[in-house]
Amino acid sequence: MSKNKTKPTLKIIPLGGLHEIGKNTCIFEFDDEILLLDAGIAFPTEAMHGVNIVLPDMTYLRENRHKIKGAIATHGHEDHIGGIAYHLKQFDIPVIYGPRLALALLAGKLEEAGVSNRTKLKTVMPREVVRVGKSFSIEFIRNTHSIADSFTLAVTTPIGTVIFTGDFKVDHTPVDGEKFDLYKLAEYGEKGVLCLLSDSTNAEVPGFTPSERSVYPNLDRVIGQTPGRLMVTTFASSVHRVNMILELAAKHGRFVSVVGRSMLNVIAHARNLGYIKCRDDLFKPIHEASKLPDEKVLILCTGSQGETLAAMSRISRGDHRQIQIKKGDTVVFSANPIPGNTISVVNVIDELMKLGANVIYGRRQGLHVSGHGCQEDHKLMLALTRPKFFMPVHGEHRMLVQHSKIAQSMGIRASNMVIVDNGDVVELTQDSIRIADRVTSGLDLVDSSRTGMVRDRVLKERQQLAEDGVVTVATAIDWDGKLTSHPEVHIRGVVATMEPVRLKNKIVEDIEKVLTSRWKEFVSLDNSSEQEELEVDWVGVKTQLERQIQRTLRRELQSNPMLVCLLQTPKDQPSTTERESKPPATGRRRRRSTARVAS
Amino acid sequence: MSKNKTKPTLKIIPLGGLHEIGKNTCIFEFDDEILLLDAGIAFPTEAMHGVNIVLPDMTYLRENRHKIKGAIATHGHEDHIGGIAYHLKQFDIPVIYGPRLALALLAGKLEEAGVSNRTKLKTVMPREVVRVGKSFSIEFIRNTHSIADSFTLAVTTPIGTVIFTGDFKVDHTPVDGEKFDLYKLAEYGEKGVLCLLSDSTNAEVPGFTPSERSVYPNLDRVIGQTPGRLMVTTFASSVHRVNMILELAAKHGRFVSVVGRSMLNVIAHARNLGYIKCRDDLFKPIHEASKLPDEKVLILCTGSQGETLAAMSRISRGDHRQIQIKKGDTVVFSANPIPGNTISVVNVIDELMKLGANVIYGRRQGLHVSGHGCQEDHKLMLALTRPKFFMPVHGEHRMLVQHSKIAQSMGIRASNMVIVDNGDVVELTQDSIRIADRVTSGLDLVDSSRTGMVRDRVLKERQQLAEDGVVTVATAIDWDGKLTSHPEVHIRGVVATMEPVRLKNKIVEDIEKVLTSRWKEFVSLDNSSEQEELEVDWVGVKTQLERQIQRTLRRELQSNPMLVCLLQTPKDQPSTTERESKPPATGRRRRRSTARVAS
Repeated sequence: MSKNKTKPTLKIIPLGGLHEIGKNTCIFEFDDEILLLDAGIAFPTEAMHGVNIVLPDMTYLRENRHKIKGAIATHGHEDHIGGIAYHLKQFDIPVIYGPRLALALLAGKLEEAGVSNRTKLKTVMPREVVRVGKSFSIEFIRNTHSIADSFTLAVTTPIGTVIFTGDFKVDHTPVDGEKFDLYKLAEYGEKGVLCLLSDSTNAEVPGFTPSERSVYPNLDRVIGQTPGRLMVTTFASSVHRVNMILELAAKHGRFVSVVGRSMLNVIAHARNLGYIKCRDDLFKPIHEASKLPDEKVLILCTGSQGETLAAMSRISRGDHRQIQIKKGDTVVFSANPIPGNTISVVNVIDELMKLGANVIYGRRQGLHVSGHGCQEDHKLMLALTRPKFFMPVHGEHRMLVQHSKIAQSMGIRASNMVIVDNGDVVELTQDSIRIADRVTSGLDLVDSSRTGMVRDRVLKERQQLAEDGVVTVATAIDWDGKLTSHPEVHIRGVVATMEPVRLKNKIVEDIEKVLTSRWKEFVSLDNSSEQEELEVDWVGVKTQLERQIQRTLRRELQSNPMLVCLLQTPKDQPSTTERESKPPATGRRRRRSTARVAS
Repeated sequence: MSKNKTKPTLKIIPLGGLHEIGKNTCIFEFDDEILLLDAGIAFPTEAMHGVNIVLPDMTYLRENRHKIKGAIATHGHEDHIGGIAYHLKQFDIPVIYGPRLALALLAGKLEEAGVSNRTKLKTVMPREVVRVGKSFSIEFIRNTHSIADSFTLAVTTPIGTVIFTGDFKVDHTPVDGEKFDLYKLAEYGEKGVLCLLSDSTNAEVPGFTPSERSVYPNLDRVIGQTPGRLMVTTFASSVHRVNMILELAAKHGRFVSVVGRSMLNVIAHARNLGYIKCRDDLFKPIHEASKLPDEKVLILCTGSQGETLAAMSRISRGDHRQIQIKKGDTVVFSANPIPGNTISVVNVIDELMKLGANVIYGRRQGLHVSGHGCQEDHKLMLALTRPKFFMPVHGEHRMLVQHSKIAQSMGIRASNMVIVDNGDVVELTQDSIRIADRVTSGLDLVDSSRTGMVRDRVLKERQQLAEDGVVTVATAIDWDGKLTSHPEVHIRGVVATMEPVRLKNKIVEDIEKVLTSRWKEFVSLDNSSEQEELEVDWVGVKTQLERQIQRTLRRELQSNPMLVCLLQTPKDQPSTTERESKPPATGRRRRRSTARVAS
């Protein structure tokens, strides 16, 4: 279409969401025009010390910012929209289309980050079609998911239509009555879908994902039959779940206190847009609720994943400002732990029980269902869209593999699908799909202060510090290789298998040994200038000292603490040990007496 | 019996295993005689940086070592015998009774730790009764568990019999044919059991735990039908599982290469004692196996929990010396991840898949069953033993609570049971059970080198180092509050939200600011002695410098790195900043000129 010699090609470049759960971020590129589909965040793994948020490395988009024609948000979850506020600090996005709820949540984030002026947000309704650039025409197809107002996309390009499912399950009885627009999927399938990019989160799980509504009778039973005060925790973004809990609170005559910033935020926006319908007077601030009889109160709060700072975790530790557990309280977990959060969640449950709460939790209670489709949902998606090519997305490697097996079982040939990683460049033409290239990809780690990026080097240092601690040694040495003061040794986070004082003495001995036995190696005479000069290789001194001390630490501690060695050289010379400031490797001094050299 | 005024009382003091999974360690104490029941280890949680093994704090036993009459090992799992080698360094144990397999494994550990001479190991057979001290008579009742040769104990004391289940499930078709001796339990029940202490691990799970044998047909299918090379990983200590895998390898014409130290160790002992029966020529060392056709090889290895250093994890990272994954390999996980290990395990699975292996994993494969009884097993135990008092043990808090509910549903009154924590002293008499006291309890953390103990302070320091890194500042100051050299600043593991050089300059500015604006505060004149002396409060100087630098770090970095501040004072005075060596808080110098004081 665009080029004479090569076939018209759609490049699909996922920057996040592949081989992982989270930070879904995908680029469609055609004829120098880029469409960005979702831009989410992920949460740090255990090894990412002090990291708060994980973003994809956006080098490729930053370098191609002039090509960006617009972006789409499929729905309002953090792993689909959470990255946008960060990215807008690096490049503008002319326009972002998305559902009302997602854009309402996004607008707040952009405002907070001070980047509202770097894009335009435009809400879309189901079956609305928008054009982005010359190459992309996007139809928004209502789907069903755990958050309200979620879309599957039909992206029509010059070479054909690509269906981008976003997150979905097939829920025939959705809580808000907004059914999956199966007709539209089928219509595209009948007209011909070139490629399907589909959510793989639950591709390992057989069967269908139950309807969100299946939780209702169980919540009804729990909320209706519990005596005393009731606390319920769930994902703030699970708008349907929150809706049901509020409805059931009203039904059973309980006022609701909402606790936790994200819960308050989502409820406010969802009510504002009509996704949650309830009376204003259902809500009572927590200080008023505490005056009501216990059986009239339902506290709805964050912390279903055992997040350290969320309300439920603080309550379990007994350090929530306003809420203390008392005997007779019932706490309900209407969420399953995400893998990796299990230990935190069961710890919170144990602590709540120890404080006297009755805790209702666990898969057997029927108080949670997933928002992602299982194997039969995937088969239905494939059956309706009948794609020529297939690319499983949103999932860890084995989920992508399972999803591709499902597609193969439906008759799609293995050669017509690709399992890709973040940064892979998939080239899609009307009759081929292949991984053609790679662009820069990786992680940007935002630290707990949310202001700085945590680099690999910093993480490695933190890992070593966490494992083995740090030993700091400060030594001041004069021109003759003599200590000008007693070396200082500080030990932090180190397991001392010997008395700290003995260890310090050993280190001091090391220093003295190096200085007495090897000083000559570091000293040379330079008579190139008029006056004879004494030259000391301070970097060499430091390296030798470090080697010797490290050997001692390994031998004595049988561990490998980080060693910070500070060498103070004579005042008339600037320090030569600061690598970062690139000092000269040697120091010089005019000699007054040659006799002093040979010590 | 022993005392006139108070009723004869059995003290039950769990030091480990309560409110947790692992390090099961329980004391029975009667009339100044102590019987120790199991002494295991636990594995560290995420927050225990650099910790390898977790032991209970044994202060109570150490202080009462003269009372120790003997110990029992119920079975050979690490969480029941792994602590003994460490404890024997603190106190002797006159005799340890246990099943042959457990004591064979234990003997190796004691040998390795060089403490074999601090106890005597005596093997017992089913229904054997041993006497320990004057107060305890113990009958060993065969039970069924995931390791072979496991016992439930009937401990008869002057006030009655206590049944101590150890780990168990009720397996009516055990792999080794050694059935649960239900008659003995029933007999004790009929005669009258004073108290039951029972394993609570699976008390949250409804139903019966399936027989270990239920795994057989699934393993048979997988091992029989897999083409190419096969690798199987499971718990080394799951002797029955290992036995089945070896049997099936032989059945399907595969030689077995055993990889991983603990797997080799357990198989050697279990074969030696006849718990595993197979021909010698079934085994091939890995270098020989690599010359065989792939379909003739089964590699049995450690690493089913994704442990970083275990064979399967190294294979998945491509850094195992002898085994590389090649396309066509099949890897079988015959184990479920223990909560907390899930992420490590799925990462290993993903990496194996990426290397081209077909990986068979997950609960739906039927390749693993638990070794611990579920709710119906617990009911059977309660029905057979019919205890007057009940104490759920071995489990996290919510498991203990669930187990106590099961007991209540069987008719035991809540007032006849206690839910206890490690360190609680339970006083059991013929007609009462109550928590009467507490003894020292807690954790001893053994570090990765296995030589040192990780103290709380060290852990807290490591946590801070891991979260925020460390800033080291070295300053040399003379008697006049002047810098004698440029301060050195080193930053490690710190997220720099500004140029490191700028941060360092700010810190140097801080130091200069404190020295110029506040030096007078730190200096005083002492004319008590003949010659006037200048006194400098070096501790005060250091404290002020630290405060100022910390403020700057918090403001500039929005984080709280550890600050190590090293102050070099003039050479003629020893350093005053080493808290550990308790220096004088002030330094003195003879003055030559009074004019120098007022700067």
